[in-house]
Amino acid sequence: MPGNSIGKLFRVSTWGESHGKALGVLIDGCPSGIDLSEKDIQEEIDKRKPIGVSGTTRREEDEVEILSGVFEGKTTGSPISIVVFNKNSRPEDYANIKEIYRPGHADYTYEQKYAVRDYRGGGRASGRETVARVMAGAVAYKLLKKSKISIIGHTIQIGNIKADKFQAKEIENNELKCADKIATVKMLNLIENIKKENDSIGGIIEIVIKNVPIGLGEPVFDKLDADLSKAIMSIGGVKGITIGAGFDTALMKGSENNDEYEMKNGKVRTLSNNAGGILGGISSGEDIVLRIAIKAPASIGITQKSVNSNGKTMNFKIEGRHDVCIVPRVIPVAKSMAAIIIADHLLRQKAIQE
Amino acid sequence: MPGNSIGKLFRVSTWGESHGKALGVLIDGCPSGIDLSEKDIQEEIDKRKPIGVSGTTRREEDEVEILSGVFEGKTTGSPISIVVFNKNSRPEDYANIKEIYRPGHADYTYEQKYAVRDYRGGGRASGRETVARVMAGAVAYKLLKKSKISIIGHTIQIGNIKADKFQAKEIENNELKCADKIATVKMLNLIENIKKENDSIGGIIEIVIKNVPIGLGEPVFDKLDADLSKAIMSIGGVKGITIGAGFDTALMKGSENNDEYEMKNGKVRTLSNNAGGILGGISSGEDIVLRIAIKAPASIGITQKSVNSNGKTMNFKIEGRHDVCIVPRVIPVAKSMAAIIIADHLLRQKAIQE
Amino acid sequence: MPGNSIGKLFRVSTWGESHGKALGVLIDGCPSGIDLSEKDIQEEIDKRKPIGVSGTTRREEDEVEILSGVFEGKTTGSPISIVVFNKNSRPEDYANIKEIYRPGHADYTYEQKYAVRDYRGGGRASGRETVARVMAGAVAYKLLKKSKISIIGHTIQIGNIKADKFQAKEIENNELKCADKIATVKMLNLIENIKKENDSIGGIIEIVIKNVPIGLGEPVFDKLDADLSKAIMSIGGVKGITIGAGFDTALMKGSENNDEYEMKNGKVRTLSNNAGGILGGISSGEDIVLRIAIKAPASIGITQKSVNSNGKTMNFKIEGRHDVCIVPRVIPVAKSMAAIIIADHLLRQKAIQE
Amino acid sequence: MPGNSIGKLFRVSTWGESHGKALGVLIDGCPSGIDLSEKDIQEEIDKRKPIGVSGTTRREEDEVEILSGVFEGKTTGSPISIVVFNKNSRPEDYANIKEIYRPGHADYTYEQKYAVRDYRGGGRASGRETVARVMAGAVAYKLLKKSKISIIGHTIQIGNIKADKFQAKEIENNELKCADKIATVKMLNLIENIKKENDSIGGIIEIVIKNVPIGLGEPVFDKLDADLSKAIMSIGGVKGITIGAGFDTALMKGSENNDEYEMKNGKVRTLSNNAGGILGGISSGEDIVLRIAIKAPASIGITQKSVNSNGKTMNFKIEGRHDVCIVPRVIPVAKSMAAIIIADHLLRQKAIQE
Repeated sequence: MPGNSIGKLFRVSTWGESHGKALGVLIDGCPSGIDLSEKDIQEEIDKRKPIGVSGTTRREEDEVEILSGVFEGKTTGSPISIVVFNKNSRPEDYANIKEIYRPGHADYTYEQKYAVRDYRGGGRASGRETVARVMAGAVAYKLLKKSKISIIGHTIQIGNIKADKFQAKEIENNELKCADKIATVKMLNLIENIKKENDSIGGIIEIVIKNVPIGLGEPVFDKLDADLSKAIMSIGGVKGITIGAGFDTALMKGSENNDEYEMKNGKVRTLSNNAGGILGGISSGEDIVLRIAIKAPASIGITQKSVNSNGKTMNFKIEGRHDVCIVPRVIPVAKSMAAIIIADHLLRQKAIQE
Repeated sequence: MPGNSIGKLFRVSTWGESHGKALGVLIDGCPSGIDLSEKDIQEEIDKRKPIGVSGTTRREEDEVEILSGVFEGKTTGSPISIVVFNKNSRPEDYANIKEIYRPGHADYTYEQKYAVRDYRGGGRASGRETVARVMAGAVAYKLLKKSKISIIGHTIQIGNIKADKFQAKEIENNELKCADKIATVKMLNLIENIKKENDSIGGIIEIVIKNVPIGLGEPVFDKLDADLSKAIMSIGGVKGITIGAGFDTALMKGSENNDEYEMKNGKVRTLSNNAGGILGGISSGEDIVLRIAIKAPASIGITQKSVNSNGKTMNFKIEGRHDVCIVPRVIPVAKSMAAIIIADHLLRQKAIQE
Repeated sequence: MPGNSIGKLFRVSTWGESHGKALGVLIDGCPSGIDLSEKDIQEEIDKRKPIGVSGTTRREEDEVEILSGVFEGKTTGSPISIVVFNKNSRPEDYANIKEIYRPGHADYTYEQKYAVRDYRGGGRASGRETVARVMAGAVAYKLLKKSKISIIGHTIQIGNIKADKFQAKEIENNELKCADKIATVKMLNLIENIKKENDSIGGIIEIVIKNVPIGLGEPVFDKLDADLSKAIMSIGGVKGITIGAGFDTALMKGSENNDEYEMKNGKVRTLSNNAGGILGGISSGEDIVLRIAIKAPASIGITQKSVNSNGKTMNFKIEGRHDVCIVPRVIPVAKSMAAIIIADHLLRQKAIQE
Repeated sequence: MPGNSIGKLFRVSTWGESHGKALGVLIDGCPSGIDLSEKDIQEEIDKRKPIGVSGTTRREEDEVEILSGVFEGKTTGSPISIVVFNKNSRPEDYANIKEIYRPGHADYTYEQKYAVRDYRGGGRASGRETVARVMAGAVAYKLLKKSKISIIGHTIQIGNIKADKFQAKEIENNELKCADKIATVKMLNLIENIKKENDSIGGIIEIVIKNVPIGLGEPVFDKLDADLSKAIMSIGGVKGITIGAGFDTALMKGSENNDEYEMKNGKVRTLSNNAGGILGGISSGEDIVLRIAIKAPASIGITQKSVNSNGKTMNFKIEGRHDVCIVPRVIPVAKSMAAIIIADHLLRQKAIQE
C-alpha cells in the first residue's frame, strides 16, 4: 500500500533507490507564485553531503533538476517534479550482500515483505533516500520564509559527550553542527577513536522551530506534535523523539512542568517552555523544541553474526567504508521533515481561517 | 481541516466533548464477519476508569451503545458507530475558567485557533476524549486476536521511582499497572505525598506488542514506527516516544546496538532487540517495544500565574479534585492506539500480498 | 476498506442502516464560528420526506440531534456528529426477503462482498442512507451561503414526459419539483397510471449551482466536474451524469460548442454555457449545470424471476408499498451532494490563496 | 491543494506540462513481483499517438523511461517513477496566445486560479497530460491481467453518425476504433468535411470491462460506478458519463429496467444488463458498461470572439493544425483510467477479504 507520501495539503511523495537510475520528489499542493529555482534546492542538497571525519567516502555529486511545476522562475500551482540522477553508483559493490541480511539494516524485513529486493546499497532503505526529503524541504522553506518561520538544528550529544553551551553562530561552520565548540572537539576525538575500531556511534540532535504562528495543528490525531513525530520517526536511524521537556517530564511535578502565562509586550507568553511550543496539539507561539535520538550506523567493519537467505547462520563482515556517525547528516533531513509538516499545517490552517 | 481520523484502511474517527451530549467513534473499514458486542467494548471502557489514589473523583459511568455496522452479533463491513452518552456532567463547574487560560492546558491555543471555545472541562481537549479511542481499540483488538497478536502495557516509572522487575501477572491487578510489586509500593507512597501537596506527577510507560507478523509497515513515510509514534504522541499528556533502545542508542556503538541474527527453531531471530522489533520501518517479528513519557496532569490545586482572555496577568487556583497521576490511565489508551495502528497495517499488508 | 467518507477538507462520513438503531453523519473540517442549530438541519430533512402520489407510505418522522461540535449555537471547529434515531422500523417485514436477491437491488452484491448481510430494508444500501447525506448538505449550505452560492434542483423529465418551461418559483411548491406546471400535470398522470400497474418509473433532474467563485477545482484528477460526478453517481439509483451540453456535445462542432468570451459589465463572461460552468476542471464563474439520470425504483409489485441464496431460480413478488418514482426525492439528496463538494472546494481553494 | 493523484491503494500521481521538460507518473502501492518493462508501457503510449485524418500533425515521439521501483524486470513494491522527456516542443509557437483566453480551453480559469500560467500549449491543461495517465494504465493492466479482467473501448458515435454493429475484431485496426466498418466510412467522411471547414467534431465512446470479480466497490461514496465516473470525467473534453442503460433509464419502468436473475451454469446471472454490471456500487460479475460523451476539440481554425488578459473583447483565430476529432484518442486514456480504478478496487477488496 502507498506509504511514500506525507503531508495533506503540501503533499510530498518520494521515490528512487540508492543505486537505481534516479531519486526524486513530487510535490503537489504548493501554492503558485512562489520563487523557486534549481539553485535554491541545490544549496540544501549540498548541505547533506558527508563532510569530515564522520562521513563516508562515497562522493555524492547530486545535480538537481526541476522537471515540472515551475514556469519563468515561479511555481505554477501544478505538481513540482524534482529529480537527481544517480552518478557514481557501483551496484557491483553489493554483489556480496545479495544473499545476506546485514544486522541493523532492513535487508531481512524488505525481503520478507516484498520478496523482490533491490539489494544494491539498501535500495529504497538506503540513506540516499533522504536526498528527496531534503529537496522537498527546500521547497517547504520557501513557504516558511514567507511566514518568517525559521528552523535551527544542532547536535547535542555524540556517544556520551554532551553539548553544554549554545552558540547559534557556531552551528553552521561546525563539522558536527554542534553549538558548543569545546564539546565538539571531544566529540570529534571520540569519533576518530570509534573510526579506528571500525565501529560507529550514535547521538542526539535538537530541532528548534522559531516563530510558528499560534494555531497550527489539527486535534485530536493530526496534532502538530503527532505529525512532527511521525515525520521525524520516518527518517532511517531515528529511535526516539521528544517535545519540550520530553522524558524529563516523568520526573516533574505539575507545578514544575506547567508553563505559567504572563503578558509580555502585549502578548500572551509563557515563563518556561516545558511544553515545547505545543499545547493540546496546537502551536502556542513559543519555540517548538524537538529532541531526536539517532542510532549508530549499522554498517561496521567488524565481524558480526548473521543469517543468509538460505537460512544459514554465519559470520559476516561488511567491506568498504561507511559513515562512522550520521548525526550531523541527519540534521538537514530532520529540518526538512519539520519544514514539510509546518508548511502543510500552514496551508491547513489557512483553509479554515476567515 | 479534518484531523479527527486515524488509520487508512481501519479508519477511526472520533468526536465529542467532555461535557457535551455524547462521545463517540466511527470505524470505517472493519472487515465483515467479526464477532462484536457492546460487552466487548464495555470491558475495555471499564479499564479506563480512574481507580485508587492516583485518580480523580469524577465518576465515569460510561455505557457503550453500538448504533450501526453490527448485525446479529457480527460486523457487516459497514461503518460501526459507537457512542457513550455523557452523564454526571456538570458544565456549571467550569464557569470560573471560562475566561482564563489554565497553564499546561490547551485553553489558550484552542481559543486562538478556533475563536469559539467549549470551555466546559476542556471540551474536545479533555482526557474524556480518550473514551472514543478506547472504544476503537476494543474493535481493533478483535482483528489482532485473529492474528494472535497481543499487547502489554505497564508503568515503568513514576516521578523518580523506577520499576526494576517485570512480572507480567502483576500488571492486571496492580493499581498502577506496574509489573514490579516493590516499586509499586514506593510509587503509591510518592503519589500520596504529591496529593497532599495538591500537586501532580508524571511517569513513563512501556508498550510491548507481541507476535506481530513480519512485514507490517509501509516505507518510507508510513513506517510502522512512524505511524505508532504519531498515534501515541496524539494522546494528551504524552511528551516523548522511543522504540527499542530509544535514547540509549545515542550512547551505543554500532557493534553494541546492531541486533545480530541467528537461526532459532527454523526461524530467523535476533540475539538482542535494540531495534524494538522494527527495521527500516517494517516489523521483524521480534517484540515491538515502545516507551512513552507522560507529563504530570496540568490541573493542580496550587496557585499559578496566568492570563485571562482580556489579556490581564493574574494569579489563579484550580478548584475541585483532579487526577494526581494519569500514568496508569494512559495505558489502556496507548494500547488502544497501538492496536488501531497494527490493525490498520494488517489490512494494508493484506492488500499487497498474494 | 473505508468508503463512507467524502470531501477532503469538509469531510463527511455517514453511517447507519435502514432498520438499525440510528443513522448519522460525522462532519470533520467545518470551520468554527458558523451558526448551526438542529432546526437548520431538520428543515432540510423534512424536504426529503415522501409526498404525494409518487412516494412510499412509510412515514419517516426523523428528528435531528446534534451530539457534538456545536457550542452556544456556533460550530467549534471540532467534529460535528448528527444523528437521527430510527422509529417506525419494522424489520420483521423483511423476513421474507432474507434469502432472496431482489432484482435491481444490491442484495446479491452485498452478500457476495460481505457474506454478512443486514437484509432489513436493504440495510446500508437503502434509500434511508440519504438522510445522512441531507444532514451534511444542510451544514454545507451554511458555508455556501457565506459565499452567496445557491443551488437549484428540479425535475426535467419523468418517463417520456419532458419539462419545456422553466419557472423557478414553481419548483418549491410543486409535488414533483418541476419548473413546468403543465408538464407536471402530465407527469403526475403518468405516475398515477404506473402506480396502478404496480410498476415504477424513472426520470431526469437538473442541478444548477449559481454564483460559484471562479477558480474552484483541482486539476488534473480532483477537477470540480470530476468530484461532482463522483458525489452524484454515489447516490443510489443514479445511472448517468452530464455537465453543460453533456451528450449533445457529441453532435456539436467546435464552432458550436465553444463558449465565446466577451466583457460584460467589467467581467469576463461567455456568450453561451455549453461547458456548464467548468473549464479544465475549474469553475469559470458561469452557472454549473448538471443533468442526472435516475432509474425507476427496483421494488415493484409485479412478479419477477430471481434467485435465492441457495442458488435456486424462482418467481418472486415484493409485497408492501414502495415509491413509484423517486425522482423528486433525489433532488434534495443531489443538491446536498453538490453542496458538500462545493463547500469542500471552497476550503481547498482558500488553502492555496494569498 | 493536491489534486494530481487518484486511487487509494494503487495510487497514481501525474505531473508535467505540454511544453515543459518532461511528463511523468508516480505509482505508489503497486504490489511487488509484477513483471514490468519499458516495452510494456511504450506499447500503450504508442496507441495514444494521433493517426489518420482525425489527428494533429504534431509528432509525439515519446520514449518511456522507468526511473525507480523495478529491479531485474520485476516491481519491488517501492514507488514506480516513469517519465517521458518532451521532444519536438516549440513553446515559441504559443507566444501569440500568451495573453488571450482561447474559447473552450482552460486558459481563463487557470489564470484566475493560479495567477501564474504556463501558456505554452495549454501547460498542464493540455491533452499531452494524458501521456502520464496511459503510462499508469499500462501498469494497471498488469494487475488486471492477473485477474483475467479485460477492457474494450470503441467509438459508437461521431457527430450524428452512430455505430450500429459490433464486431470486436474490427476495433484494433480501425482508424476510429469503431466496431462497425460501414459506420466508420461515414464517420471518416464526416471528419474529412469538418476538417475542410477548419472546424472540429465530438462523439461518444463505450468502455466495456469484462470479467470483473463480484464484490468490487466500497459503498456508500467509493462505489465502483462513482469512482469510475470521477476518473473518466477527469479526462479533458469529457462532458458526460453513464453506466448501463444510462439516460435511457429515465424512460424505463422498473419492470423493464430491473435485471432479473437466474442460475446459469451454476452461477447467478442476470437476463439483461441495464445496471451495467454494478449494483449498490458493487460489481455484480456482469460486464461493466460505460458510455462517455466527448466534446469537439476547442482549437479550431475559425475566427472566434474572445477576451484578452487586459479585459479587451476581440476577434481571434487559432493558427496551426490541431486534432479535428479526439474521440479515438480518448479511448486509450479512458481505458487507462478504468484500469487504474479497477486495479485500485482489486487491492481494496483484498484488504478486507479472508
